[in-house]
Amino acid sequence: MTKVYFAGSIRGGRADAELYRQMIEHIQKTDIVLTEHVGNLALSKIEHLPNRDVAIYDQDTAWLRESDLVIAECTTPSLGVGYELAYAERFGKPVHILFDASRTNLSAMLTGDPYFHIHPYTTPSEVLPILDSILGR
Amino acid sequence: MTKVYFAGSIRGGRADAELYRQMIEHIQKTDIVLTEHVGNLALSKIEHLPNRDVAIYDQDTAWLRESDLVIAECTTPSLGVGYELAYAERFGKPVHILFDASRTNLSAMLTGDPYFHIHPYTTPSEVLPILDSILGR
Repeated sequence: MTKVYFAGSIRGGRADAELYRQMIEHIQKTDIVLTEHVGNLALSKIEHLPNRDVAIYDQDTAWLRESDLVIAECTTPSLGVGYELAYAERFGKPVHILFDASRTNLSAMLTGDPYFHIHPYTTPSEVLPILDSILGR
Repeated sequence: MTKVYFAGSIRGGRADAELYRQMIEHIQKTDIVLTEHVGNLALSKIEHLPNRDVAIYDQDTAWLRESDLVIAECTTPSLGVGYELAYAERFGKPVHILFDASRTNLSAMLTGDPYFHIHPYTTPSEVLPILDSILGR
């Protein structure tokens, strides 16, 4: 089973949280998602406990180094996800980026970086089949 | 003169473009800003020319490696800025992050990373004095 680091916006905004949840659930049919909490609909963007952030950073970077593969949903802009993508590249992890091209223009720092595998889509129905192809199903 | 890489949101949203412009102008009183275009109010978030993105990525990463210092205004979430911050860390560049704490909760991937110098502010009048202190004025 592949260990997947799933990246999606938290404090950047939770507009796509339900999509993240569906994607994580779909990946979990055959593989492991280290960051299952990203799809937790109860997780608020304003959650912020003092001194918790260092623990979050340490855990997320440990999971990135442990993962076999990174899958990021990038329609909602996020500083944390941008950081995670560069971190994953630094450690040589394969990175797949999905985004809704009808709703956003992806950053040139991602589309212009030949390291990343970019998967634009225009309707939500395309998302799960893209995941299947990434996971070799 | 210090060569500053100024990072701010472009495709993530241009709500703070005028603030970026003022910050860049202030830095330029004594130092060099490699990324002056980030404060160009005519720069649209929907600007997207085919095959231009690789050139943007190559130029921005070259500027990051060439810079002495990175200053990022992070109130508006941006995938590109998140990527640039991790890239700057990888190359050992000092990184200063400013954000309006009355408008946003910064990502734990930034606040939890001990590498970064984080400068929260709550009124715009604090921003230029923070720049002065970063630049040793």
